[in-house]
Amino acid sequence: MNIKVIGNYIGKFGELWEQSLTDLIKEGVAGVLADAAIESGEIEAIFVANKAGGSFNQQRHLGALVSEQFSHFPPAMRIEGACASGGLAIIAAQQALLSGVYKTVLVLGVEKMTDVSTGETSAILATAASREKEYGSTFPALYGLLANYHMNRYGTTREQLSSVVVKNHLHAFDNSKAQFHKKFTLEEVSNSAPVASPLRLLDCSPISDGVAAVILSSRDSVRKTKILGFGHGQDTLALADRQDLGQLVATQKAAKQAFNMASLSQKDIQAIEVHDCFSIAEILAAEDLGFFAKGQAAAAIANRQATYGGQVVINPSGGLKACGHPVGATGVKQIAFLASLIEAGKFDIALAHNVGGSGATAIVNILGKK
Amino acid sequence: MNIKVIGNYIGKFGELWEQSLTDLIKEGVAGVLADAAIESGEIEAIFVANKAGGSFNQQRHLGALVSEQFSHFPPAMRIEGACASGGLAIIAAQQALLSGVYKTVLVLGVEKMTDVSTGETSAILATAASREKEYGSTFPALYGLLANYHMNRYGTTREQLSSVVVKNHLHAFDNSKAQFHKKFTLEEVSNSAPVASPLRLLDCSPISDGVAAVILSSRDSVRKTKILGFGHGQDTLALADRQDLGQLVATQKAAKQAFNMASLSQKDIQAIEVHDCFSIAEILAAEDLGFFAKGQAAAAIANRQATYGGQVVINPSGGLKACGHPVGATGVKQIAFLASLIEAGKFDIALAHNVGGSGATAIVNILGKK
Repeated sequence: MNIKVIGNYIGKFGELWEQSLTDLIKEGVAGVLADAAIESGEIEAIFVANKAGGSFNQQRHLGALVSEQFSHFPPAMRIEGACASGGLAIIAAQQALLSGVYKTVLVLGVEKMTDVSTGETSAILATAASREKEYGSTFPALYGLLANYHMNRYGTTREQLSSVVVKNHLHAFDNSKAQFHKKFTLEEVSNSAPVASPLRLLDCSPISDGVAAVILSSRDSVRKTKILGFGHGQDTLALADRQDLGQLVATQKAAKQAFNMASLSQKDIQAIEVHDCFSIAEILAAEDLGFFAKGQAAAAIANRQATYGGQVVINPSGGLKACGHPVGATGVKQIAFLASLIEAGKFDIALAHNVGGSGATAIVNILGKK
Repeated sequence: MNIKVIGNYIGKFGELWEQSLTDLIKEGVAGVLADAAIESGEIEAIFVANKAGGSFNQQRHLGALVSEQFSHFPPAMRIEGACASGGLAIIAAQQALLSGVYKTVLVLGVEKMTDVSTGETSAILATAASREKEYGSTFPALYGLLANYHMNRYGTTREQLSSVVVKNHLHAFDNSKAQFHKKFTLEEVSNSAPVASPLRLLDCSPISDGVAAVILSSRDSVRKTKILGFGHGQDTLALADRQDLGQLVATQKAAKQAFNMASLSQKDIQAIEVHDCFSIAEILAAEDLGFFAKGQAAAAIANRQATYGGQVVINPSGGLKACGHPVGATGVKQIAFLASLIEAGKFDIALAHNVGGSGATAIVNILGKK
């Protein structure tokens, strides 16, 4: 597969009161074009990842809004799959490149979530759940169920959940674009305010504004990062319809496809960005992606096997938890961040994992040094 | 290009009080699988077109919702580009097929607009406009501007606008799936209630619920319809940023690409489904697609050149105006309807034209008998 990441850009994630949705789009376009050092006219098509600009910002038709930042108005479409919108837009862009219709495309993920109240944001996010929302379930509640199940079945502990958070905040400390630059102790995480038992406030990724963008190309480039494989799995929307709450099957399917396409296995991968919307989600991801046997990821993460010097670096950016989770931007940020690490020579092969809903959609991409 | 339309289905369009969004999805999936006469397991991926299910129905993550109608959970994504969402989903599906990643995919367009009040619907639709909405512009107002411009520059008359509506309601009379089965006279249209001068109530497409689906495949099939070419054009969101209000440049760009890809010209085309969200939009489309010289389509339509026995049949389904306009379904319905006519031997080559916003996004597909 001949797809290179020839440009990447991540804006500062956070509560960006001074920037509108359009401001973030303009920043992302300018940033990624500057990083790629190409003329804007070389962008042949645009894939925009955004979850709910219509509700957050009263702005739909974001494809056209990104396209009109260019004087030649490249064809544009918006891709949505709840919190997996970014990963899905990467997949759509890759399929467009592989089709030969385009040779260089922009993928831009953006979300401006703080234009409405936190209560409204929660309500908007809940619309990506299934009929479970009708019974009052929120995403923290659904992931709380998954956490309880994992703890009961595999002996995962409260302190191990906290170790995910401590690690990711530590990683984010070195990421200038991260929403949080604050280290926490295990005790601080374990004793933070209860949200949906056993999950506490510091187990949860935040509400964030942000933009991330990559330029993918099948043309020759001096840039060093290429896509080695991708996969896309689906499962039921509702947890109630799942066979086994100890695993996210969509992640397993996506990983299998991506590893097959790349002809690689887990031992070849040095760093992974996983979808840690909640601490338990990172543990599930590390297992379902095949990096740890089922039931063993939590202890491994607690034993420093998921940071520098360990078996695999999980969430070097700080993840959704500490880097932030502007929903549509997240899956694009993962690719942009890993590409920047590969460009910098920090890793040779890395994997990104983006999830929508409580595991209904999962996207895996594998990137490597070409 | 080897993409066949191996199944098509259009549900009844209208105010479907008895059907939920999920009901419409279930109907579309079952209907198109029955028409294609394939096993559900043959669907390898799903592209869902929907404009605003989050706001209309408090339901996001529609890709997953459609995927879970299948026991094997095919990978799914939602594509959005305002009222061009359906055409865009067709384009994304075609790129996925041309990439070789999939060989048989489902494209399903759906919108359930009547779950909220008409006022809320108008507000939701307006979010696809540009900053113009901040000054109180609605889509009827924006298209009213385009109509005034066309009348002043080209001498287009009120009666000619009405002739578009009379023709499309006549065509819809033979389409069992159409929202309206009611014929109107020129006088009735011209004297209907003013909405945004010069546009009147009967110049405007309705608020509709509906579903449409096609199955596209690169595998061998006994079905007779194939895709010959496609194109995708963009322009500014705001009319205020356009050079010339007498044309929709996005349509011109999309048409040029599609005709080039198909190696065909306008004279080869026997029927076209165009995006007549308002009567003036059909006149603009007929000109910008190249079927009539600029300024001449209105008179030609009035002179019965756009119906059976004329130069080209425009909107044999009744168009958005009379068949209905469930936004996400519209672009898919165009392809499904034309494919059904080609399968039935009524036409050999036909074209579909889908627009988002007031001309910011335009999609053209050309279908033909293989």
